[in-house]
Amino acid sequence: MNVTVRGKTTHYRTVTFDARQNAVLLIEQRLLPHQFEIVAAKTFKETAAAIHDMIVRGAGAIGATAAYGLAQGARAFRGSDLKRFSRHVEMVYSTLRAARPTAVDPVNAMDQVRAAMHVGESVEEQQALALAAAEEFANEDVRHCEEIGKHGAKLIRNGMKLLTHCNAGWLAFVDIGSATAPMYAAQAAGRKFHVFCDETRPRSQGATLTAWELAQQKILHQIIADNAAGHLMQRGEIDLVIVGSDRTLGRTGEVTNKIGTYTKAVLAKRHGIPFYVAIPLSTIDWNLKSGFDIPIEERHEHEVLGAWGVIADSKPAKRAYVRVANPGSSARNPGFDVTPPELITGIITPAGIFKPRELWSRRRQLGFAD
Amino acid sequence: MNVTVRGKTTHYRTVTFDARQNAVLLIEQRLLPHQFEIVAAKTFKETAAAIHDMIVRGAGAIGATAAYGLAQGARAFRGSDLKRFSRHVEMVYSTLRAARPTAVDPVNAMDQVRAAMHVGESVEEQQALALAAAEEFANEDVRHCEEIGKHGAKLIRNGMKLLTHCNAGWLAFVDIGSATAPMYAAQAAGRKFHVFCDETRPRSQGATLTAWELAQQKILHQIIADNAAGHLMQRGEIDLVIVGSDRTLGRTGEVTNKIGTYTKAVLAKRHGIPFYVAIPLSTIDWNLKSGFDIPIEERHEHEVLGAWGVIADSKPAKRAYVRVANPGSSARNPGFDVTPPELITGIITPAGIFKPRELWSRRRQLGFAD
Repeated sequence: MNVTVRGKTTHYRTVTFDARQNAVLLIEQRLLPHQFEIVAAKTFKETAAAIHDMIVRGAGAIGATAAYGLAQGARAFRGSDLKRFSRHVEMVYSTLRAARPTAVDPVNAMDQVRAAMHVGESVEEQQALALAAAEEFANEDVRHCEEIGKHGAKLIRNGMKLLTHCNAGWLAFVDIGSATAPMYAAQAAGRKFHVFCDETRPRSQGATLTAWELAQQKILHQIIADNAAGHLMQRGEIDLVIVGSDRTLGRTGEVTNKIGTYTKAVLAKRHGIPFYVAIPLSTIDWNLKSGFDIPIEERHEHEVLGAWGVIADSKPAKRAYVRVANPGSSARNPGFDVTPPELITGIITPAGIFKPRELWSRRRQLGFAD
Repeated sequence: MNVTVRGKTTHYRTVTFDARQNAVLLIEQRLLPHQFEIVAAKTFKETAAAIHDMIVRGAGAIGATAAYGLAQGARAFRGSDLKRFSRHVEMVYSTLRAARPTAVDPVNAMDQVRAAMHVGESVEEQQALALAAAEEFANEDVRHCEEIGKHGAKLIRNGMKLLTHCNAGWLAFVDIGSATAPMYAAQAAGRKFHVFCDETRPRSQGATLTAWELAQQKILHQIIADNAAGHLMQRGEIDLVIVGSDRTLGRTGEVTNKIGTYTKAVLAKRHGIPFYVAIPLSTIDWNLKSGFDIPIEERHEHEVLGAWGVIADSKPAKRAYVRVANPGSSARNPGFDVTPPELITGIITPAGIFKPRELWSRRRQLGFAD
């Protein structure tokens, strides 16, 4: 999407590949929203480190980064011995997979690249096929987000007030995003609307990343404390909720997403406000049979006990972590929650909008070959 | 309640009066939880400034502070002319009232002091009566909180997990608190339980003040992001919710409290978890006929856009405000919300526990003379 730096507007993808330098180019997301910078990961090890260190985050974005990283590693091989090349590629694969061991997207993406490579009959040919497959993976991510946008935009009418939680925007994908895709498509269709961004404590991705994205795209928005949505719904100030998902169970329609999503779904239900979840196909888990089987990551308590930001009036802008909470106290920090299907109006997928319990019967249409 | 500073445990009230110095002594709440300090407001103007600048906050605490401030101002008068004294007292009254113009507690408290003074036949006698009335106001606040604790403690059984929101603790009153009173009473009765403190963004009173209070009282607790309670309820980790209130409508049973309270009540209802509101009598508004008539204060957006805390590893500890949110974005910041009676299991008052819709029929028992 568009980014304006010092008055100049340029179109960026979250992750791209520079074939001449054999480098993966990434938006340095840890500096956002206070600073916009593109970093080049010049070796597959640097690419793995960028995933590990969260320079890049978000399901689609780390999938594409791993795909490019595998191609990058393959292309760095010198020689023509296919056996040695193959061992090298496996080592690259393992390194990239270990960068974010619980994520499923890098593995799926790299499997796709590896499968495409094997057709090649020489090292050189396999290297070329790897890059082509990685590019295709990234392009498909973008196409899927475009499709989500096309289907979801129909839900957004002029004058509406939307709510979103966390960041399921283009920074979490290669471009466009999932929850934000309908907004960008509705804007392109000339519709005017307003977005409330849940701050999304403890990591504040709504206040930082989603707000930054919407500001860059000149979409009217306001940040609210996670506590405020209930009050705004009570007073009739929210018409539609769209969020993303980290894992949606194809068998049950249960949606795992950033902690606090479930709360918003409960509130929306009470107020009769439509609650939609926008997801790329890679987010669907066709195996698990119950939301209670989804392991909920307990993250470090320092996220809850303080906040990261830029010290007021510091020149040059100085980033810091401040401890907010009582020094003697500890915290619980579950990272995700599970929203049951009865609270979800619809799941916006690249293949159309479905009721959450419909996913299983639509599984072939959704690309799942059982 | 007890405060331990450098290993020494002392009992403090949030606000007391030093008659010899004619000073109001206050816990400097803006330094908590990082630093504990008692400040002396040596003139009624300093006392008004302390209310205005939020050195002291919370309904009962600012009521008692204003009561003491009025006595302090009256006692500073030199002379015996009752007419001039009376004009002086009115000026003191206006100054203190203007310190927090929307709050009802300082006005109620000062009206009580002023009514008691008028019986006196000399300046000196009226000065003495003013101080006695202020002391009585403070002592009654403590007695009411004790009664709330006595009634509410019956709800807390061994091994329970409680949730509270914001700070309705002893720092918001003269001592003991409202929502915390049942916890302190249950602890005194030897019961063991665990308290989850909602962080309570944007001002984080749960993470700072409530957590500090519970830590001082050695009550097991953990801070959670406001987003996390829904998930914990889903997994059966919360048995009971107790919150305070800034204004409860005696006619309808609607409860105004810190933003986010309504959300917790909706979640508790969904999960069949008892949701109680603990209130002193002064919190009941017998006039308003609908929660929609309660003006909801919209506070400054910088509260939502950043956070106050202590910079990590700074020595000596350096306090700072950090901007968290995207610099180009703005925020909405409603300070309170309204919880309807059907979501409230009971209202814990000094006179017993009532259903919210029972308050009106119990109004005489609750001290309201219509």
